[in-house]
Amino acid sequence: MPPTPRIKHCRACGTPVDYRVPVDDNRERAVCPACHEVHYQNPCNVVGTVPHWEDKVLLCRRNIEPQRGLWTLPAGFMELGETTAEGALRETIEEAGAAIEMLPLYTVLNVVRAGQVHLFYRAALQHLTFDPGPETIEVALFSEADLPWHELAFRTVRVTLEHYFADRRSGHFGMHHGDIT
Amino acid sequence: MPPTPRIKHCRACGTPVDYRVPVDDNRERAVCPACHEVHYQNPCNVVGTVPHWEDKVLLCRRNIEPQRGLWTLPAGFMELGETTAEGALRETIEEAGAAIEMLPLYTVLNVVRAGQVHLFYRAALQHLTFDPGPETIEVALFSEADLPWHELAFRTVRVTLEHYFADRRSGHFGMHHGDIT
Repeated sequence: MPPTPRIKHCRACGTPVDYRVPVDDNRERAVCPACHEVHYQNPCNVVGTVPHWEDKVLLCRRNIEPQRGLWTLPAGFMELGETTAEGALRETIEEAGAAIEMLPLYTVLNVVRAGQVHLFYRAALQHLTFDPGPETIEVALFSEADLPWHELAFRTVRVTLEHYFADRRSGHFGMHHGDIT
Repeated sequence: MPPTPRIKHCRACGTPVDYRVPVDDNRERAVCPACHEVHYQNPCNVVGTVPHWEDKVLLCRRNIEPQRGLWTLPAGFMELGETTAEGALRETIEEAGAAIEMLPLYTVLNVVRAGQVHLFYRAALQHLTFDPGPETIEVALFSEADLPWHELAFRTVRVTLEHYFADRRSGHFGMHHGDIT
């Protein structure tokens, strides 16, 4: 699912769009020559959790592209009608079928190349019964030493997990902000 | 600029869309019956700063709707090709013409009703020469006591300023996360 497919037709009336800088703007947009609708395209948020149990974190092995077969923290695109935390909880339920208590926002990571901002929350697993959804091959818990570091699906997952285990050793979980370049 | 206008035509081919739940999805989307493009609509990020000078913060009086004439922190929609911090800096330059040093991420506020997440960074003004852009009537600095609390444009601005002055009194600036309901 590319988040920013190029717009060719007006979403309001179907007319082929022009690309130009609208009045009172400073950036090229898709503009409808017939109904004058301006089509903005903006970054999307990906929201997820770092669910933990004792010294282990929960990962999901992806059953969908991109990165099918690799391991990820439960996460997905934030939807209209929900908060970042509600989206992160929803994705954790959909992908892992895990019961969690949501904890504070943990990482905010820009992925400019993909037009995305990834926001992960820490979360406490409530029990060890899981029910992975169709997007997940399997769910497993990993300690830092056992973690499949070379089979992680996304760099934001790696960075978040690196922060998590470093903070766990230090005994202090801060909020981490960074850019994936 | 409504962030989530209803899609009536396919952006790829112009055909009138249907609304249905795509295969492998669980939510209604605009789907093209001709080319099968699925059109996702997701929340947008609004990024801005809290520029300070001694005990004062910079506000901009809006020259555009919504809330023309009311005061806001410099902020606007995050664009593709930039990070949240780069967008916040860009908006501060565009709306206030202010020179700032970017400081840590300060508030992350969900505005579900608008389909937005607002992210504000603290920032240090480098000097007191400003050059407001066309979206701004005037720029001014306000201490907590002088601030036009009843003429603020947006609730996320109010919440961010309330946190800012409370943290300033306590001497500790944390990161604040919340929902505007």
